[in-house]
Order: sequence, then C-alpha cells, then structure tokens
Amino acid sequence: MDSYVIGVDVGGTGTKFGIVDKDGNVLHSSAMPTNTHAHVESFIDELYVRLAELIEKVGGVGRIKGIGVGAPNGNVYTGTIEYAPNLPWKGVIPFAKMIQDKFKLPVKLTNDANAAAVGEMMYGAAKGMKDFILIALGTGVGSGIVSNGQLIYGHDGFAGELGHTIIIPDGRLHHGTRKKGSLESYASATGVAESAREILRESERPSLLRNIPIDKITSKDVFEAAQKDDEVAKEVFEFTGKILGMSLANFVMFSSPEAIILFGGLTKAGDLILKPTREHMEANLIEIFQNKVKILFSHLKESDAAILGASALMWD
Amino acid sequence: MDSYVIGVDVGGTGTKFGIVDKDGNVLHSSAMPTNTHAHVESFIDELYVRLAELIEKVGGVGRIKGIGVGAPNGNVYTGTIEYAPNLPWKGVIPFAKMIQDKFKLPVKLTNDANAAAVGEMMYGAAKGMKDFILIALGTGVGSGIVSNGQLIYGHDGFAGELGHTIIIPDGRLHHGTRKKGSLESYASATGVAESAREILRESERPSLLRNIPIDKITSKDVFEAAQKDDEVAKEVFEFTGKILGMSLANFVMFSSPEAIILFGGLTKAGDLILKPTREHMEANLIEIFQNKVKILFSHLKESDAAILGASALMWD
Repeated sequence: MDSYVIGVDVGGTGTKFGIVDKDGNVLHSSAMPTNTHAHVESFIDELYVRLAELIEKVGGVGRIKGIGVGAPNGNVYTGTIEYAPNLPWKGVIPFAKMIQDKFKLPVKLTNDANAAAVGEMMYGAAKGMKDFILIALGTGVGSGIVSNGQLIYGHDGFAGELGHTIIIPDGRLHHGTRKKGSLESYASATGVAESAREILRESERPSLLRNIPIDKITSKDVFEAAQKDDEVAKEVFEFTGKILGMSLANFVMFSSPEAIILFGGLTKAGDLILKPTREHMEANLIEIFQNKVKILFSHLKESDAAILGASALMWD
Repeated sequence: MDSYVIGVDVGGTGTKFGIVDKDGNVLHSSAMPTNTHAHVESFIDELYVRLAELIEKVGGVGRIKGIGVGAPNGNVYTGTIEYAPNLPWKGVIPFAKMIQDKFKLPVKLTNDANAAAVGEMMYGAAKGMKDFILIALGTGVGSGIVSNGQLIYGHDGFAGELGHTIIIPDGRLHHGTRKKGSLESYASATGVAESAREILRESERPSLLRNIPIDKITSKDVFEAAQKDDEVAKEVFEFTGKILGMSLANFVMFSSPEAIILFGGLTKAGDLILKPTREHMEANLIEIFQNKVKILFSHLKESDAAILGASALMWD
C-alpha cells in the first residue's frame, strides 16, 4: 500500500496543510487561521481535528509516514520555533515534539523558506539541481540555500537569513530588527510600499498612487499602477530590482548556484522586477560568474508549494 | 610503511611545496619562484626537479600517495587554473593533468583559499568544526567556505569569492575587476594602503605616514605607524575593521558558521583589526546570531599553512 506524508506550512496569518503522495500530488488540503490562537496548545488541537478529517479520506493514520512542518524561525536541529516575530507564540516553542506527541507520528521541522527550497528541488523549478538558492519575496524576504544537494543549515540550524544581509550600509531602518539597510527593508512587499511612499513624500511627481491615502499604499497598489504605466510605480520596481540584483550577485559569489529561484507574492510583478534584478546582478558579478546563473520564478502552484515543501522534508 | 602526500601552493610570486605525513607534519619543504616562468611547462619542469630531491629523502616516489595543489582560480571539478589575474600563464591551464602526466601520481587541485580552509579543518583553528569560513586577508581577499563538513564548491567549482562581494554600493573602484565597493577593495593589504592615501590626500592631518612618498605607502607602513599610536593609521584599521565586520555579518547570515578564521598578512595587525571587526560584525547581526560566532586567527605556522592545506586535499 502506498504511504503518504503530511505537509504543514505555518504562517503568521494562516496555516496550510495537506496530504501528499510520493509523486508530489497534493491529494487533500485545507487551511486554518494561526493568529486566532493565542496559545500554541489550542492551535495544535485545532490542527489535529482538521487533519484527522483528511487522514480518514486516505485510509487512516496507518498510511501516514510522518509530518513535515515549515515554520518561521523553525530549527531543524532542535525541532523548535525560536522567537518568531510574526507568530503569536513567544520565546522558544518545542513545536515538533508537541505535534509528535499529539499525532504519534514522526515530525521534521525547518524554517518555511528551507521547506520551500526542498519542495522546489523535489517537484519544482530546481528539480535535478544540486546548487541553488530560493528567495521568498513576500511580506518579508526568506531564503533557503542548497549546496551539493543539501540544505545549508549552519552550525545552529539558522543559516540562510539572506533577507537580513546588509546591502545599503546605514540605509533604511528595518522596524523589526532595528538594523539599517537590509535586503528585506527594500525587496519585500513592505519595502516596495515604503519605496513608493518615499518617492511620493520627497517629490511632487504626479502618480496614480496619490489617489490612495499614503499610509494605505500596498505593494499590490504599486504593481497595479505600474501596469498602468505609472512612472513613479515603475521606478519603484526598477529600484527594488537594483537592490535585489546587487544582493543576488553577492549570494552568487558566495555559493555559486546554478540558479536562483524567486518565490512569493512579489514575483507576480513579472518582468517589472525580473529585468532590473537580472541586469544589476550581472553588473555586479565578476567575470567568471557572468551569464551563467539562471533567475527563475517558482512554477509550483502557489497554494500547493508550501505544503509540498514541508511534506518533502519527510521523504528521505 | 607510512605513506606521505605532497602539498604545493602556487602563488603569484613564489610557489611553496613540501612532503607531509598523516599527522600534518611537514617533513621537508622548499620554495621556488613562479613569476620567472613565462610558460607553465618550464614551471612544471623546475617543480619536478626540485620535488624529486625531497621525494628521495623520504624513500622514493613509492611512498607518495599523491599531490594536492592550491592555486589562484584553481577549479576542483576540471583541475584547471582559469584566468588567474596574478599568474604569468593566461587563459585556461590544465594544471592538474600536466602535473599528473609529469609525476605519474594522482593530483587534486583547488583554489588556494579552499586549500587553506581544508588545512585549518584538518590541522588548525577549525579542527573538529563542520561549519566555518576562512577569510584570507593578503594582497587580495580570498575565502573558503565549509558547511556540514564539506567545502562549498558551487555548481561550477568557483564558489567562495567573498572578496568580490559588494559591501559599499558605488564605493571604491577595484582596479582588477572594475567593480565598485567590493570587500577586497577595502580589506586587503592593497585596500589598507589605499585607505591611508585617501585620508592623507583629503585632509591636512599630521601623520608619520607623511614621511613616506604617498604612492609608496604599504599596509606594513600603516601597521607600524599605528603601533606608534599614529591617529591616521589607527583610523585606517578602524575603518578596515568596520567594512570587514559588516561583510562578516552578511556571511554569517548566509551559512551560520561556528567560527570565522582569519588568515594572511593583515592578521599581523592583531587587535587593531580584530576589535573593530568583531564590534561591527555583532552590530549588523540579527539577534539569533549575536554573540555566537567566534572570530579566530589562524594559528598554523605561516610557512607551513599553505602546504598543509594543499596536501590535505589528498587525504580522503
């Protein structure tokens, strides 16, 4: 009889989960809120009830090989979620052990971007690659690094925090980390909106974005304006791509990947972000790296990607 | 009978070589010029004659397991030296194959900083570590990255060019690469001398360095002036440490190493460089990485380190 794995992707707002077969088909999936659970225990209770329904559909728990979990600040070595700024549960949470005790199944946990990288390697744009970097461009900037066919975890399990690397010394303040000039402060959905606000505040230039209260502008608004050929909005993507491209050049000179896989909400901007990113990456690479590294968009179905990535942790 | 390996460290000016036992003892060693050989063939002929003398001393070629070579732009996958700016031989040189054909022994080649990293892992400051980064602060800035006990080579063998990562966008021009603001343009011996010249040119501040013709100032002069409490010279090391520390923070957030091993001429400056480097690294790290990562100086005997590192490639 075939066996299946469960993938769980814990996000700040919601949590997605599903049952996956060996070929990467998500057989059944669902979602539940994260941020309504002030206590992690009640979160796990609801997850148990919700997953039990799906498990019955595939023939009961005997068919389930284990549970893979992707979560912000998830640590593969300890199975803990540590000081995740976007989750309601503070401090160090022994998440893998709690899930294991509840479900009586093996559990493997890592951070959400690492899980996505494994998903891309098994089923997505990085299939067959041994050296690549996944960059998740969402509310923040996450990353998962694969070298020699293995995820880079580092000595403490926290490797791959590329969103926090400094690209503009003494640049824009990141309100979460209090550091200045990190990639995440520019090349995230939050950063794109902030860049638009900066231009609008510092100039009198006309823009469709002036029809929106300045503090309500989102990256989606900037994208929609850019699609309507708004000059300010287009400049925001040009600038974002410049920062991202410089950063990618640095990452390439670190691990020399075959490809960089871009993932997450900002990739919806397509060529608006891809073209300047590629141009500025190439411009900052030394010769031996030029015109070698692919920049690819993830082509996993977005709703499945996170579940697939988390579940893939269990296929070893 | 014990067997030995040969380590060869090819540098732009000179080449060092020696015979090493399993415990990392350099039994016999010597050196020869590199830059007097316009052709790689004549270089290898001299190396063969010079090494033959050492091989006889340990009982003949039957005792030699193989030859490990560290060379600038050396590629472990292809055994070639590719477009090394500091070597007299241009283009792509099939160096490992040429050595193998001449000596009739197995040869393994990688770049010089990777070789040094392997040496540190087997015999030096990184002994027992599975995750560390070696930064070689010499005329340029080289690096070797070890993750999960393995050197990171990348998909093409050129990973670990951390000296060329951009730390000051649109910063100082690197005359070799024509890129602006790379770590190497600041945190190398060349960069230290350039930083001193910049301060002297742009201010009227008194300094012992003004006794030297400005174009003749070397990093050694800056170090000696700093030891005599010269304010300009001390500021140069403070500034160099700031740039290096910011870069190290970025490297830590990439691969989360247990330690960073500093190696090469600039480390002679001791606390003058170490203190600001550590301070600025910590200041740019997000919380989960703070106060975790050691910055260590290599403690291998400098004349042996390169030979040991190269030879260590053959012990697998």
